[in-house]
Amino acid sequence: MASKPAPDATRRSEKSRRAIYAAALSLVAEAGYPKTTVEGIAARAGVGKQTIYRWWSSKADVLLEAFLDLAEQTARPAGHDGAGHETAGIPDTGDLAADLKAVLRATVDELLDPRFDAPARALTAEGVVNERLGRVFMARLLEPQLQLYVARLRSARDAGQIRRDVDPRIALELFVSPLAQRWLQHTGPITYDYTDTLVDYALYGLAPR
Amino acid sequence: MASKPAPDATRRSEKSRRAIYAAALSLVAEAGYPKTTVEGIAARAGVGKQTIYRWWSSKADVLLEAFLDLAEQTARPAGHDGAGHETAGIPDTGDLAADLKAVLRATVDELLDPRFDAPARALTAEGVVNERLGRVFMARLLEPQLQLYVARLRSARDAGQIRRDVDPRIALELFVSPLAQRWLQHTGPITYDYTDTLVDYALYGLAPR
Repeated sequence: MASKPAPDATRRSEKSRRAIYAAALSLVAEAGYPKTTVEGIAARAGVGKQTIYRWWSSKADVLLEAFLDLAEQTARPAGHDGAGHETAGIPDTGDLAADLKAVLRATVDELLDPRFDAPARALTAEGVVNERLGRVFMARLLEPQLQLYVARLRSARDAGQIRRDVDPRIALELFVSPLAQRWLQHTGPITYDYTDTLVDYALYGLAPR
Repeated sequence: MASKPAPDATRRSEKSRRAIYAAALSLVAEAGYPKTTVEGIAARAGVGKQTIYRWWSSKADVLLEAFLDLAEQTARPAGHDGAGHETAGIPDTGDLAADLKAVLRATVDELLDPRFDAPARALTAEGVVNERLGRVFMARLLEPQLQLYVARLRSARDAGQIRRDVDPRIALELFVSPLAQRWLQHTGPITYDYTDTLVDYALYGLAPR
């Protein structure tokens, strides 16, 4: 059991942690996942390799936490408070379409943010060919975000705004996955108009009513 | 202007071409795009490097044609005849849901086919971080497939089965992109039941009717 560190030590640790996150994200964006090493992260962050191994067991671990931290910073409008704590998730104003549009617009902002774009692409690309890593990042980073949509859709189902036979875990993919594919595969522009349209199509269907 | 080659030469060329496609696809699956070279493809195919440069200008070119050829072979049930020629695209039986379900089931088969999976993952991963390559492959490989859905949805719109204000190029993403994301990011299982559900949700919406 370590005793509680002195305030100065805590501040120093926090500064090192920030430097390590920034180094990990910039390195993976520049060099790709396979060429990113714990040594390289340590050198760029200006800390010893042992400082990293004191807190994390591998480069995958460092990157995972760096991303969780980045997501907290860039995704605040969508379910995070100013202090970086996750709040109840997607807002529930009672207007499902409006709530989904708001959170998808925030995701558009995030995808177009260069701080997020390059490292997220590098990591996602590695997950496409490295199934083990892809599954870890899915479970730790992506699925928790998707579960916020599940919760919002369940609440809408309870309010009678979604059909009772709809599976929320599949339903959310109708508006989340198109945006993801446009971002990953450059299959089309990413705009608020586009995500608004996805929500309308998904909720009200393509067939005449 | 070259004169028409003798039948024996044509057969030899066709054999070399097949060997080069197979070598390119297996190499990119094993080593990834950055480490795949024209020299490596030539060595594995048992041809000289100049044979490759006679027909293609770069490894991207070879891989693009190898993929077009592979797609012709694996996608025959979905819009190709037995001779590998593209036919009218997605079947139009008048039942839009049934036609979309049939073509998505064929895509499920393709995604689960190991001949397709590994090289397609390697190439897609590279396109995620290499925008220039990603856009070339999108334009030459992915978009032509998406345009088959656009044509089928336009025909359904003309038949009154899709609302007049629906943009077919966006609408198709409601069932195509979720399948793509599950495949790329390991976000869920890929089954016929799943793609059938996507079609039903997309056509009839999530909200009560």
